[in-house]
Amino acid sequence: MVKESKPTGGLEWRINIPNGTTSKVLVPESKSHFRVWNGLRGLIVGFMSRIWKFFEKAWSLAVREPKKAIHGLKVGMALSLVSLFYYMRPLYNGVGGNAMWAVMTVVVVFEYTVGATLCKCVNRAIGTFLAGALGLGVHWIANQSGEKFEPIVLQISVFLLAAAATFSRFIPAIKARFDYGAMIFILTFSLVSVSGYRVDKLFELAHHRLSTIAIGTSLCILTGMLFCPVWAGNELHYLITNNMEKLAASLDGCLVEYFGIHANVNAKGEDSDKVLQGYKCVLNSKATEEVMANFAKWEPAHGRFYFRHPWNEYLKVGAFLRKCAYCIETLNVSTNSDTEAPDILNKHFSKFCISLSSCSSDVLKELAVIMHTMTKSTKIDLMVHEMNNAVQELQCALKSLSKETIIGDSKSGIEEGNKSTTVVPLMEIVPIVYISTLLIEIAARIEKSVEAVNELAIKAEFEQESTKKSKKIQNQQNPNQPSQGNQEDLTMKTLQKV
Amino acid sequence: MVKESKPTGGLEWRINIPNGTTSKVLVPESKSHFRVWNGLRGLIVGFMSRIWKFFEKAWSLAVREPKKAIHGLKVGMALSLVSLFYYMRPLYNGVGGNAMWAVMTVVVVFEYTVGATLCKCVNRAIGTFLAGALGLGVHWIANQSGEKFEPIVLQISVFLLAAAATFSRFIPAIKARFDYGAMIFILTFSLVSVSGYRVDKLFELAHHRLSTIAIGTSLCILTGMLFCPVWAGNELHYLITNNMEKLAASLDGCLVEYFGIHANVNAKGEDSDKVLQGYKCVLNSKATEEVMANFAKWEPAHGRFYFRHPWNEYLKVGAFLRKCAYCIETLNVSTNSDTEAPDILNKHFSKFCISLSSCSSDVLKELAVIMHTMTKSTKIDLMVHEMNNAVQELQCALKSLSKETIIGDSKSGIEEGNKSTTVVPLMEIVPIVYISTLLIEIAARIEKSVEAVNELAIKAEFEQESTKKSKKIQNQQNPNQPSQGNQEDLTMKTLQKV
Repeated sequence: MVKESKPTGGLEWRINIPNGTTSKVLVPESKSHFRVWNGLRGLIVGFMSRIWKFFEKAWSLAVREPKKAIHGLKVGMALSLVSLFYYMRPLYNGVGGNAMWAVMTVVVVFEYTVGATLCKCVNRAIGTFLAGALGLGVHWIANQSGEKFEPIVLQISVFLLAAAATFSRFIPAIKARFDYGAMIFILTFSLVSVSGYRVDKLFELAHHRLSTIAIGTSLCILTGMLFCPVWAGNELHYLITNNMEKLAASLDGCLVEYFGIHANVNAKGEDSDKVLQGYKCVLNSKATEEVMANFAKWEPAHGRFYFRHPWNEYLKVGAFLRKCAYCIETLNVSTNSDTEAPDILNKHFSKFCISLSSCSSDVLKELAVIMHTMTKSTKIDLMVHEMNNAVQELQCALKSLSKETIIGDSKSGIEEGNKSTTVVPLMEIVPIVYISTLLIEIAARIEKSVEAVNELAIKAEFEQESTKKSKKIQNQQNPNQPSQGNQEDLTMKTLQKV
Repeated sequence: MVKESKPTGGLEWRINIPNGTTSKVLVPESKSHFRVWNGLRGLIVGFMSRIWKFFEKAWSLAVREPKKAIHGLKVGMALSLVSLFYYMRPLYNGVGGNAMWAVMTVVVVFEYTVGATLCKCVNRAIGTFLAGALGLGVHWIANQSGEKFEPIVLQISVFLLAAAATFSRFIPAIKARFDYGAMIFILTFSLVSVSGYRVDKLFELAHHRLSTIAIGTSLCILTGMLFCPVWAGNELHYLITNNMEKLAASLDGCLVEYFGIHANVNAKGEDSDKVLQGYKCVLNSKATEEVMANFAKWEPAHGRFYFRHPWNEYLKVGAFLRKCAYCIETLNVSTNSDTEAPDILNKHFSKFCISLSSCSSDVLKELAVIMHTMTKSTKIDLMVHEMNNAVQELQCALKSLSKETIIGDSKSGIEEGNKSTTVVPLMEIVPIVYISTLLIEIAARIEKSVEAVNELAIKAEFEQESTKKSKKIQNQQNPNQPSQGNQEDLTMKTLQKV
């Protein structure tokens, strides 16, 4: 009885017979089957849901960046085209059954951007050619040194050249431009010097390999450049432009959140959070920018970019934008912290801080417009002057703080009868001083970005904006701008400072 | 005469004949030859000096990171070994002349770290196997559909699968782990489905390819793991540890430069500059860390790391360190700026700021020790408490500023008769408030790094430091530490706050 009543740890049916002395446990016969089936079903469902999620992700990526889906189709097309060489007998005989190399070239060389494809094509061609020539030379030397020493000479040459070429891939100058070429060099040299020992048809082999590589690379370049080309230069240009817009949005968002949070706490939604976090993309964009600039240098003239477009200048602009992003990161954390200045101070400072941040973000947005339209802006200098003016106003506000407030050791801000005199403990002005100084620092960094963009505009020969066009955009973008006289006044002031 | 005296713009000898009436210019006959020769010599010298510089750079890299030079030798050795297959006839016949694939595998698969090599090997094997199997399947279907439709079926399958696999390489989950596998899949599938149309010996081909790949990969793995192995996990571990040390050094350097610059301007040499700039390496380490962590996951147990070592935790620690670095960057710029607080304030605050920064950098150094020795530290909690105490002291100093100084609108700090009372305009305290707040923020970020390291220590099962050992290190590292009673006092205070 005692044993029977012990719980079995599973599903069970128990019947109590009315006389109350015995109870019988009904163990289902198919219990273990049920368990196995449930476990299996769980596994299958889990597996299917993972696959489903994967496809969902893939689909959303394809919708978000259709260029990437198109790239897949382009690779498929190029491969189908190159495999035609196999089916067409005359062509097939022409390259001597080595059409395999053409297929391989297409798969290995076809990259997302035209620049990367060109880089790999040139690398592959140069690497193959150099290694082939060197391989033939080494073969000749090995042949001269007698049958006994031939394999030794070949082995030593493979060892030394492979070691040297592999090490050279760590040297930054080589790594940036000829990494793939060095690998192809090692590959071809090893194949030529090793297979030559057997094949004895080295010249023919070299000729076939070069011609199949030529077929593969030209197919890749044509497909890459003719159907929806993705230019690394273009991507870099828009990456930098987008980064400017993201920084501007984040800067605005930070300040609005800090000063506006009291008024409307619930206004902060997911979207605004996303905008606020935009600067995070800028923090880690260095590697992408460098890769893009590297590939852009291989690209011919395309769209609005010349062959020798100053791509390195983009890296400089990117570096300054990143410095802004570091500061915005610090600002974002500090505006999110719990320590807050008293309301009276916040009210007093909010207009200066928001004015500076909106001037700063306007400058960033104008930089984005300059980049987008590739025209020099006539009003960027004015905007920078305005920004500097806002900096000065904020500094004045900080100075006047000592006039308007008597800072003592009292624990809270007490508004006195006199409207402009408030007693605020020093500790409570710390957040506002901190945020103001960060904003001033951000403005300084934005000014450096402006200089970098100006440098880029000169080197890339951006067009001069016509006065009419500029006025039109000016009115569209900034309807609340001060009048021209006022602006000139500001300009004079700022110039005197400078 | 006038014409003669006109400068020719080149090298010339002029003879003045004593009678003073005429002068004759001797134009060298071989002038153009000289020019050509000089130009050529310039070119050759320039070229040679560039090559010389290149070799100098390569040499300094090899001296600085001998592991990289050794990697080159390892690749050379593996290639020499694999090329032996060509020279040894029985083996050569065994793999049916496809030894080329073994050479190719070694060149393509052998990477710097063991993890990367393993990742590529597994990818290559899986990609080849899957694509081979699928290629055979598609072949069977194509065969069934009649001679007319065979090439069409094959072409369409190549197009669709290549497009899908290429697109899949953009999906982050695939990109991180199976990027190379996807490429090999496309390559093998294209080769199998295309060449099968001609070769008609598909099974044999597949068998040979797999066996040569097996030879190549096993050779790479053995060479990579047996001779001076470079483990991605190890590299990641030391990267994070070094980053902690660099941040500590930069933080110390910033403060010393700011507060110590008045005392000894010339003390700032190139070395201290290098130390100061250490944080810059941390700013951009994200990509490297992610790649390393990705490869480390492929590695078997090695050294002090188990197979399932929590590599993702390293990424979290790295992220917090980067956040510290952003703040230190802002601090570094602000301590370099010209705006300076008056000396009297600097003197007053320097001890609190330097105390906080040295506490903070001590915590960072202790974190580095924890990582280095892989033992939990008994004193890290105390150090964090000390740091928090230093934060409080600095905050108190900021508060007491209002007691000791009467902040008015006067233009300069005038020391009054009363020693502790000084009149300082508010604007002049801004830099010190800013730097103090940045230091407090950095301390907060360091505390988060400590939490992340603690999490890592738990998950990676770091050993518990014995009390004796801990005391020894404690005394060695921090001889000026307060007594235990005092520390306990601080701990209690901090715990009460928390």
